[in-house]
Amino acid sequence: MNELGQRIADLAGRKTIAADALGALATAILARCGVAEADARSVAEALVDAQLRGSQAHGVMHLPAYARGLLEGTINPAPRLQFTAGKDATAVIDADNGLGILAANFAIDRLAPIARRHGIAAAAVRNSNHFGTGSYFVERAASQGLICLGFSNASPTMAPFGARQPVLGTNPIAAGFPLPGADPIALDMSTSAVARARIRQAEREGTAIPADWSLDAEGRPTTDPVAALKGTILPMAGAKGYGLALMAELLSSTLSDGRPGFAVASPHESVGAPAGVSHCFIVIDPDGFCGAERQGARAKAIADRISGLPGIDPASPPRLPGERGHAARRRALKEGIALTPSLSGALAAAVKLLDERATMRASKGVKA
Amino acid sequence: MNELGQRIADLAGRKTIAADALGALATAILARCGVAEADARSVAEALVDAQLRGSQAHGVMHLPAYARGLLEGTINPAPRLQFTAGKDATAVIDADNGLGILAANFAIDRLAPIARRHGIAAAAVRNSNHFGTGSYFVERAASQGLICLGFSNASPTMAPFGARQPVLGTNPIAAGFPLPGADPIALDMSTSAVARARIRQAEREGTAIPADWSLDAEGRPTTDPVAALKGTILPMAGAKGYGLALMAELLSSTLSDGRPGFAVASPHESVGAPAGVSHCFIVIDPDGFCGAERQGARAKAIADRISGLPGIDPASPPRLPGERGHAARRRALKEGIALTPSLSGALAAAVKLLDERATMRASKGVKA
Repeated sequence: MNELGQRIADLAGRKTIAADALGALATAILARCGVAEADARSVAEALVDAQLRGSQAHGVMHLPAYARGLLEGTINPAPRLQFTAGKDATAVIDADNGLGILAANFAIDRLAPIARRHGIAAAAVRNSNHFGTGSYFVERAASQGLICLGFSNASPTMAPFGARQPVLGTNPIAAGFPLPGADPIALDMSTSAVARARIRQAEREGTAIPADWSLDAEGRPTTDPVAALKGTILPMAGAKGYGLALMAELLSSTLSDGRPGFAVASPHESVGAPAGVSHCFIVIDPDGFCGAERQGARAKAIADRISGLPGIDPASPPRLPGERGHAARRRALKEGIALTPSLSGALAAAVKLLDERATMRASKGVKA
Repeated sequence: MNELGQRIADLAGRKTIAADALGALATAILARCGVAEADARSVAEALVDAQLRGSQAHGVMHLPAYARGLLEGTINPAPRLQFTAGKDATAVIDADNGLGILAANFAIDRLAPIARRHGIAAAAVRNSNHFGTGSYFVERAASQGLICLGFSNASPTMAPFGARQPVLGTNPIAAGFPLPGADPIALDMSTSAVARARIRQAEREGTAIPADWSLDAEGRPTTDPVAALKGTILPMAGAKGYGLALMAELLSSTLSDGRPGFAVASPHESVGAPAGVSHCFIVIDPDGFCGAERQGARAKAIADRISGLPGIDPASPPRLPGERGHAARRRALKEGIALTPSLSGALAAAVKLLDERATMRASKGVKA
């Protein structure tokens, strides 16, 4: 067993892992896949942040898919990101088929100074990959005092309202708003009734699913997860969710001249071709409007009004978007990240891919 | 009976009214309320367009509320709209308590050339009023080849997810995308499970409502429209709709330094004070990204793919957002607008307000 495998094996029996340790492991795995150290660290940080926030489904569980793509050559480990300004506040970014997290970080970091100059800036990104959680990037902007809207398309799993063929993704929408002296508001939602991962989970567990989650291949509501996975996920709120998914698609893939969602490859299936995901980010400087101080005070007053409301269930008052994640992060930074079977399984699966690759290369006489 | 009253009375027994004739009537009513001729025509055009598109709830039925506000002085008939640029692509617009349609038209028309110069432009609007349908304004931008996102807050009728006190409005989100050689895609949706008007209708008709529309004052799901109107409308899709409503609120009222939604007055109730509605518009020029031609071709391909899908119900294939409205408009331009009791009732109610005002002024010896 190599050193990386040993570090994973050493986790056996432990209940938690520190964020730093998890980040170091994820960084090492990505670096072994050919990603430059600094990039590997950036990607690991975003994945670990999702774990910290309790977003298991968007965190380290994606590492095996990233590793497989990087090792198989369907994801470019060393992308040359290109920023092509169309006008002075807008640009197309070609992600060069690199990891989506790198492209999204690049977009936010390039747009921030442009938004500060013009009040608003936007970029559409093409030839990207799965970017994890939108909240990570809108919070990256919020930490610089900037409002950010983020959109992405995704592989087709959702039919337009009234149809049964999935030609849209569960296209996420994210929005971040800095709050003075408090964690930012960070909305991050798919436009589908449910995450596909929830249906896969029901399939594994052999349980029924609610009838308003999905349709079977004939377009009938179904409670059978197997039939649902052969059919289509439903948009949230019917025609409204479909409209929002289409909005995210058009902002992402048409402005960037990227691949439409119905031609995007799933990050979970090895298709031997680049995924071709598109994103769009709009970054807004409150100083371009009424000024950061007034804007922040207004936002804080609204947030405080909501946070001060009694809950229908007195034990759970209403939360601001992102609030649960912020609380979970604070807790996990202190107590460690829960080392669930799916988390340790993901780490092991990624290392297994690396080992297989090394074995294969060794048997071919290639230096790993 | 005065000339305007006579024109309304002459409609009795008719099944339809031509758009031009309805527009002329609405213009005359608004002009009698003190709105300048050109402004009255603009507002009437937007209201009639909603009727043409089949959006009864957002059209001429608002005329009595507009007339009452204008006559009572809670809406300014001659607003001096102020555009205060914060940075070179962004601005705050003070609507000076004029009709929301005037403020929104002004925003789109001022933002369009700025978006053409910088690739993107945005304005947040404060001290405005009800603006009717967002689709009217995003289509105004689309007719100039521009993409537009529109947001507004509204008087509080919707509780945050998990709470029972309505502190958010049914804040609408609109998005328009021009399509080459075709009607634009025009998404226009409230972020609530249902329009409050639907609950009012059930109250009038004495029918039950679905339990997932609203909560009673104690926060319990209710099928009783009377209890629902004393409680809160639910957001669409639970926490997601709440998040989107909050996003619209923050983009609108905080960037503009406007009144928060929970302090906005309802357009349907005479409260003797300005409503204080805020909006936000983001206008995007595809030439700031991959270019209008490539972008348009990409958008058309996606639209065609969706339009070509078979419907679950073969008789109703999936529609693009706004498509039903475009079809209804074409039909109504040819066949006339249905002269429903609610439409003729709204015209009559507005004229009655004018007549009462004239009588009151005459009795006080004031020249009407």
